[in-house]
Amino acid sequence: MKLSLFLTAGSLAWAKPSGYKLDYNRSPPNLSTLANLTLFETWRPRAHVLPTSGQIGDPCMHYTDPKTGLFHVGYLHEGASGATTDDLVTYHDLNPGGAPFIRAGGLNDPVAVFDGSVIPSGINGTPTLLYSSVSYLPIHWTINYTRGAESQSLAVSTDGGRNFTKLRQGPVIPEAPFALNVTAFRDPFVFQNKELDTLLKSESETWYTAISGGVHQKGPSMFLYRQHDPEFQYWEYLGEWWHEKANTTWGDGTWAGRYGFNFEVANFFSIDEEGYNSEGETFATFGAEWAEKPIVPQVSTFREMLWAAGNISLNDGKAKFTPNMVGKLDWGRSAYAAAGKYLPSDSKASSKSGAPDRFISYLWLTGDYYGDLKLFPTPQQNWTGALLLPRELTVGKISNVVDNELVREEGSWRVEKNESGVVELGTLKQVIAREPMAEFTKKKPLVESGRKISKSGSTTFDRSPESKFYILKGSVSFPKSARDSDLKAGFQILASDKEATTIYYQFSNESIIIDRSNTSAAALTTSDIDSRNEAGRLRLFDVVVDDKEQIETLDLTIVVDNAIVEVHANDRFGVATWARSWYADSTDIRFFHSGSGEVTFSNVTIHEGLANAWPERKR
Amino acid sequence: MKLSLFLTAGSLAWAKPSGYKLDYNRSPPNLSTLANLTLFETWRPRAHVLPTSGQIGDPCMHYTDPKTGLFHVGYLHEGASGATTDDLVTYHDLNPGGAPFIRAGGLNDPVAVFDGSVIPSGINGTPTLLYSSVSYLPIHWTINYTRGAESQSLAVSTDGGRNFTKLRQGPVIPEAPFALNVTAFRDPFVFQNKELDTLLKSESETWYTAISGGVHQKGPSMFLYRQHDPEFQYWEYLGEWWHEKANTTWGDGTWAGRYGFNFEVANFFSIDEEGYNSEGETFATFGAEWAEKPIVPQVSTFREMLWAAGNISLNDGKAKFTPNMVGKLDWGRSAYAAAGKYLPSDSKASSKSGAPDRFISYLWLTGDYYGDLKLFPTPQQNWTGALLLPRELTVGKISNVVDNELVREEGSWRVEKNESGVVELGTLKQVIAREPMAEFTKKKPLVESGRKISKSGSTTFDRSPESKFYILKGSVSFPKSARDSDLKAGFQILASDKEATTIYYQFSNESIIIDRSNTSAAALTTSDIDSRNEAGRLRLFDVVVDDKEQIETLDLTIVVDNAIVEVHANDRFGVATWARSWYADSTDIRFFHSGSGEVTFSNVTIHEGLANAWPERKR
Repeated sequence: MKLSLFLTAGSLAWAKPSGYKLDYNRSPPNLSTLANLTLFETWRPRAHVLPTSGQIGDPCMHYTDPKTGLFHVGYLHEGASGATTDDLVTYHDLNPGGAPFIRAGGLNDPVAVFDGSVIPSGINGTPTLLYSSVSYLPIHWTINYTRGAESQSLAVSTDGGRNFTKLRQGPVIPEAPFALNVTAFRDPFVFQNKELDTLLKSESETWYTAISGGVHQKGPSMFLYRQHDPEFQYWEYLGEWWHEKANTTWGDGTWAGRYGFNFEVANFFSIDEEGYNSEGETFATFGAEWAEKPIVPQVSTFREMLWAAGNISLNDGKAKFTPNMVGKLDWGRSAYAAAGKYLPSDSKASSKSGAPDRFISYLWLTGDYYGDLKLFPTPQQNWTGALLLPRELTVGKISNVVDNELVREEGSWRVEKNESGVVELGTLKQVIAREPMAEFTKKKPLVESGRKISKSGSTTFDRSPESKFYILKGSVSFPKSARDSDLKAGFQILASDKEATTIYYQFSNESIIIDRSNTSAAALTTSDIDSRNEAGRLRLFDVVVDDKEQIETLDLTIVVDNAIVEVHANDRFGVATWARSWYADSTDIRFFHSGSGEVTFSNVTIHEGLANAWPERKR
Repeated sequence: MKLSLFLTAGSLAWAKPSGYKLDYNRSPPNLSTLANLTLFETWRPRAHVLPTSGQIGDPCMHYTDPKTGLFHVGYLHEGASGATTDDLVTYHDLNPGGAPFIRAGGLNDPVAVFDGSVIPSGINGTPTLLYSSVSYLPIHWTINYTRGAESQSLAVSTDGGRNFTKLRQGPVIPEAPFALNVTAFRDPFVFQNKELDTLLKSESETWYTAISGGVHQKGPSMFLYRQHDPEFQYWEYLGEWWHEKANTTWGDGTWAGRYGFNFEVANFFSIDEEGYNSEGETFATFGAEWAEKPIVPQVSTFREMLWAAGNISLNDGKAKFTPNMVGKLDWGRSAYAAAGKYLPSDSKASSKSGAPDRFISYLWLTGDYYGDLKLFPTPQQNWTGALLLPRELTVGKISNVVDNELVREEGSWRVEKNESGVVELGTLKQVIAREPMAEFTKKKPLVESGRKISKSGSTTFDRSPESKFYILKGSVSFPKSARDSDLKAGFQILASDKEATTIYYQFSNESIIIDRSNTSAAALTTSDIDSRNEAGRLRLFDVVVDDKEQIETLDLTIVVDNAIVEVHANDRFGVATWARSWYADSTDIRFFHSGSGEVTFSNVTIHEGLANAWPERKR
C-alpha cells in the first residue's frame, strides 16, 4: 500500500520493485519506501551469527554435543533456532533455512518459548533443554505479573539438536516461588558449581538452575534451584540467592550501571585466568531492566548487560551470592542478553585451536532497539539483529597499577595484591574468541604507520580498507597530563566526505564514545536509523612501566562487519553497535584527535575480509 | 449403519425409525438395534437430577448463592453443568438446554474440567470455583502419572452461576506436592473448619482445600491446603493430612470396604446431630479405587463410596485426620462420587422447610458402570446416569443397644455411652433430604396391611402401584432366633410374572441384597443391562425395647423412580442401583420371605408419583 501510493506520487526513482539495484553512490531515499528485501545486503554482516532472515532474539540454549564435539549456538527465532560450529568461525544451520529446533504452541508454551539452557548429557544422556515456557503475555516488570505466565519446561533432542522434543508433561518448575509477586521468572540457566556443592552438601556434579527475575516493590532477584533427581524432573527451590533493592547500583553506578527493577538472562559460571574451571571463581553475566520516572508501563528505557564476580556463602542455611565487583559486559545500548556456555577443551573447536576449557558468551545486538524502532525499514532489510562475536570470559588481571584513588573506587575491578605502592587489580577479562580472531587476522595486515598527533582534527589513513569488513587494531597512548583534560582521541571509521563514525576515548568522563551523529546519510531520509551516541566507561589506570608511572595505554580492537561495529578495549571493555553507513566509499579510516595534548598512535593494523560465517548459505 | 443392516434383514418389527412406539407388553428386542432415542423415556427417572440428555458425571460445584439463596447443584456434563433449586425437589437448568457453566479447552484445562467446589463469597464476594484443570490424559492410579496432568484453577461467576469465567492466569495450585509420585491430585474441596483454625492458628473462617489422590507404592492420601490470601490466589500446602497404606481397610474391611490405592472426591465437613455446625465433628465422604490382583492398567474394578468421622490433631506441627469410624455412604456398585455442600438455614429451600443449617450430599449413579458397559444401548437411551436424591448427613445415634460382641467390632459405628450393659452408638446418619421426602409423601398413601410371614415365598401386595414412580416404606421385624439363621426377608418390586427385583435382608452375612437376576427381560436380549446383585452390610443390633432385648427393626425406605432404585435403611444405610424392568405391568410389590423364621412386616405404605424434578423441561 505504501509503495503504490508512493509510485503514484512519482517523486523518487528509488521506489522500484524488488530487484532494483540501489546506488550507494547517491544519497539515499527514504528507505522505508523501498520494496521489500531491497536492503537485505546493505548492512548485513558476514562474520556474525544471525538467521537466514527475520528477527533474531536472545542467544541461548548453547551446548557442546558430547557425541560430536560440535558447539551448538542457539537463539530465539520463530521459537529457537541454531547452528553448529566446529571452529567458532563458520556456522552451519541445524535445519534447512534455519528453521527452529523448538517452537511455541504446546500445552506448556502456547504463547512463546523464551530463553533456556541445555544440559549436554541430560535425560538418558541426551541433550536436555530447560526453557521458559510462556502461557500469557504481556510480561513486563512495569505491569502486574500474570500468575503462571512463565514456567520452566523440558525438551530433549535425540537427533543431534535439530529438534528438541518437549516432554509430554507439565513444566518441571511450574511457576515462580510461592506467593511471590514477581516481575519476571524466566531464562533458566543450568550450571554446575563446586562451591555450591560443598556449601549445600550436594552430590558432586549436581546441576543448579538460576532463574532471573525480580519481585515487585522489592527489586531484581536471582532464584536458585537444585536438581532433585537424575531425570531432572524436580528442582528444589533454594531461595533468592541474589537480590538487590530496586533501582540500586553497584557503587555509585558509574562503572556498572543500575541493577534496575528486573534481572534477565543470568548466567553463572566458574572461571580462572585461563578459562572455565569448575574450581574457579563464580562469575555471573546478567541483564538489568529499568526506566526513569515516570515509569511508562511496558517500557524498559534502559537495559544493562552486566557481569559480576561473587562470593558464595551460607546465610541461615541458604546459599547467597554476594558480588565483589560488578561491571558492564558491553556498553552498547543495543547489546544485551549475553548467553554463555562452558566449551570444553575436547570440543571440536577447542581441539583444533588448542584452547583449554572455556566459557564462551554471545551477546545479542538488537537491530531495532528491542522493537522500539518501529519505523526502521525492516521489511526492506528482511532481517533484524545479530549476535556479537563470541567472547572468552576469564578472570583478568591488571598488573603494576599505581595504588592511588583511581583503584580505590568501588568499580568493575578489585584490588587483589598490594606491594609497595603497586597493586594488581582483578576484573573480568573478555576478548573475542581466539578462533575467529585468528581467522580474521591470519592474512598479512595493512599496517598504518604509528604517529603522534597533538592537534584537533582527523587524519585519513594512508591506506584504508576497500570494504566495510575488517578488523582494526591500534594502541593509543596518552600523556599523564591527559587525565582530567578535554583530550579525546581515537579513530574515525566508515568515513567519507559525507559520513563518518567516530570512536574515541575522552578523559572528561573516562569513556569510549561511538559518535554516530554522522554515521549514516540514511538517517537523514529515513526514520529510526538510530544515530544516538554510544558511550562506555573505561578507566585507564596509572601503571608503572619501566619504573615510570604512565597512563595505561588504550588498546583498541575494532571489528567492522558491515554495519556492526564492535569496539573492544584493553581486554576488559566492549561496546558494540550499529553503524549503518550508506555510501559505498565510506570506507576510510582516520586518526581522530580533539582537545589539547599529544596522543601517540601505534601498532595500527587493518585485517580486511573477516570470514564468511555461513559458507553453506546461498545469500 | 447398524439400523439399515437390520431392516434389510427384516426379522424384527422393533427396528423402526425413531418415533416408533415400543411395546412394553411384549418381550423386548435387542435394544441396541433400535433407532437412536427410542429408549429415552423407558428408564428415565422423574424425581432425580440429570441433564436434559447425554452423560452425567460426578456431582460437584454445589453452592448456595448468597444473593439469591438458591442452591446450585452442579455435575460434570460437557465440562460442568448445573441447576438451581429452591426446594431440593424441583430443579431449574442454569442454562438453556442444560448447557455447561464451564467447559474444558482453556490454557489450564485443554483436555478436561474435573470436579471442583465453590466458595460462595469468594473473589470480590462472588461465587468462586476451585476446580481440577486437566492437561493430560489418561490419568489412573494403575499407570504412571503424567507430571502436571491435574492442576487446580479458579473461575468466578458474576451472572448468577450461568457462567464461571476462568481467571486469565495459570492454576492457583499448579501441581501435586513437590517430587511426590502421585496416583491422582484432583477434586479440590473447599471447606471451613474451626478445629483446624484453632490447631493451626489460622485466621477465623479461613478456607481449606482438601485434594484427593494418593502416592504410588504408598497408598491413598488427602492433601491439605490452606488459603493464603484474600484473593484465593495461593494455597499453602499443609501436607498429607490423611494417608492410608495401599489397599488396607478400616477394621477387617467388613463394614467399610477398602481404602484402595487412590482417594477421590473427598469432602470434609462439620456436623452435629441436627445438621451442619462449624463447631461440630469433622466427617469426610470420599471415594476409594482399587482392584484385585493382577491389576489391569486403567481399570478400577472396585470403587467404594465411603464416609469417615475423624479426630483432628497436630503431629509434628502438621494437621492430621485420624478416622474413628468409617462406613459406606452407599453400597451400590454404581453409586459413587458423592458431593456435598453446606446448605445454610437461610437458603431458599431451608427457609421454606424450616430446616437448620445442613450438609447435603448428592451421589452419582453411573449409568454404564463408569463406562465399562460399552454395549449398553446408550444411543437409544440418549442419556446416561443420574444423581441420587440429596441426603442430609448428620451425626447419628443408635440408642438402647445391648453391649455385646456385635457393638464391639471395629465397624461403621462407635460406642459412645455405656450405662449398665446398654450403650449408645454413634454413626453417620443419612436420610433423604426432608423436602423431597415431604413432597413425595404428602399425598395419602396406599397402606398395605402388616402381616407376619413364616413361609418362604412371595406375597403380592393387595394394592400395588400403577406406575414405576413411588416411595415404599416398611418395617421388618425379626425374631431373636433369626440371627445367624438362613432367614431372608424383604420386598419384591417392579414385579410381574416375568420380572422382579428382590430387596431383602439376610442374616447370614448381615446384608441387604438387591437381587437383579430377574429384574429385566431386556437383559436377556441386550448386552450390558447390568443384572449383578447389589449388596450392602447393615448390622441390626440387639436393642432393648420395653426392657426386652430384640433385634433392631429394619426400617426400609425404597424409592423407585422408574429404573432408579434407592434403598435406605434405618437412617444409616443406603444402596442404590438401576433396576431396568421392561414390562409395563412390572409394577407389583410383594412381600418376600426365604428360610426359616417368622418375619413381621408393618407400617407398609406406598406413595406414588414422586415429583417432577424438572417442571420446565419439555421432555
